[in-house]
Amino acid sequence: MKPLSSIAELTTRVRAFAQERDWEQFHTPKNLAMALAGEVGELVAELQWLTPEQSAAVMQDEELGPRVRAELGDVTIYLVRLADVLGVDLVQAALAKLEDSGRRYTVEAARSSAAKINADRPPAS
Amino acid sequence: MKPLSSIAELTTRVRAFAQERDWEQFHTPKNLAMALAGEVGELVAELQWLTPEQSAAVMQDEELGPRVRAELGDVTIYLVRLADVLGVDLVQAALAKLEDSGRRYTVEAARSSAAKINADRPPAS
Amino acid sequence: MKPLSSIAELTTRVRAFAQERDWEQFHTPKNLAMALAGEVGELVAELQWLTPEQSAAVMQDEELGPRVRAELGDVTIYLVRLADVLGVDLVQAALAKLEDSGRRYTVEAARSSAAKINADRPPAS
Amino acid sequence: MKPLSSIAELTTRVRAFAQERDWEQFHTPKNLAMALAGEVGELVAELQWLTPEQSAAVMQDEELGPRVRAELGDVTIYLVRLADVLGVDLVQAALAKLEDSGRRYTVEAARSSAAKINADRPPAS
Repeated sequence: MKPLSSIAELTTRVRAFAQERDWEQFHTPKNLAMALAGEVGELVAELQWLTPEQSAAVMQDEELGPRVRAELGDVTIYLVRLADVLGVDLVQAALAKLEDSGRRYTVEAARSSAAKINADRPPAS
Repeated sequence: MKPLSSIAELTTRVRAFAQERDWEQFHTPKNLAMALAGEVGELVAELQWLTPEQSAAVMQDEELGPRVRAELGDVTIYLVRLADVLGVDLVQAALAKLEDSGRRYTVEAARSSAAKINADRPPAS
Repeated sequence: MKPLSSIAELTTRVRAFAQERDWEQFHTPKNLAMALAGEVGELVAELQWLTPEQSAAVMQDEELGPRVRAELGDVTIYLVRLADVLGVDLVQAALAKLEDSGRRYTVEAARSSAAKINADRPPAS
Repeated sequence: MKPLSSIAELTTRVRAFAQERDWEQFHTPKNLAMALAGEVGELVAELQWLTPEQSAAVMQDEELGPRVRAELGDVTIYLVRLADVLGVDLVQAALAKLEDSGRRYTVEAARSSAAKINADRPPAS
């Protein structure tokens, strides 16, 4: 089986999965947004007690790594399904926001602000 | 500019965006999972007072449609960034979960269960 | 055992629970906010496929009712623990926000707006 | 005005606030759970770029402290309102879960596990 390379192909698969099971009736944007929130909650829960440094190494953990990967899969499934139902192109929506953010946070201002955050808010010892 | 068609290209763009701004230092999996939860919270908030039916027509609403699209963009950006930092292929992770769900919820069992939910839990009048 | 009547007493219990287990080291505001988000995600997941009407009757459901109650308990535990660690009085914070909202949404404006929402956004048929 | 000391009194205030504004029609458990998720998302967002140590000192920050307090107020308002609509006593629900957790995580097992986590998962350098 050749690997899927695009959200478009995944979208088609997830749609078929729902259709086959008569689940389309439950897949309103409201319900899918809730399902997405539920899955993100599970993802957050996997990382909640880790230090930031431990979280950076989480995929090397035999037990936690596969669980984090599975939660990312669930989040992706519901995000892709929600976008399909709404008729939104996720990549285009993300790009539009990125351009918008680029105007609001120019490289110079952002670098200076990041440096300031580091200077002003040292980790409380 | 040709349209992006894959998560891979978006991932590269988001990574460059963070690098240019010295934001990589803040982008631990723990922090990015929180940012993702925050953005999903904003998405959910856009739909919270709508009926399921209203939510299905939300993209036709002049005011709400663009806001929902923007929130989906933000969610996608942080999801893609988190997966990049963790080294996880989102589409592959989603496919793996879909196959797993396919074994747990067979088409026959799921259809029968969906029918049962409708029969057992009529909307309270 | 007499019923607890205040958040203050619950706060003391939750604090002792954490102290006895050496869990205070994990209870930074950042971690507790994540734990709260995880529990709210579980609560949302219990209601995600229900219609609004079904959700209104959820406590009468033999299976779902106790689960919703348990999730509300978990959410309350982490919210109370987070407020304890931050030194915030939840009831006072809520009251302050309520007064603030009262100024922003006057009774007249809110009633008129609620009526308008009903007129402008009929459920899509 | 004497300070409120119980969730019961806050519940009454929040209920009156909604009734006066004709907002009860929007306050189904499903909608309120979404509103709760949205507010928790805002709370998480306030802490997302902070280190755990910075988060522990957040209430001393002139800018962030009041914002975190306001978000805690919002979360409390929606949690109390949701519990009111469902007829659930939050403190009793929390106590029941605490007793349940006490049986699952005995003091000895929890202390030993906490020690193990510290030994097994040193912060990745």
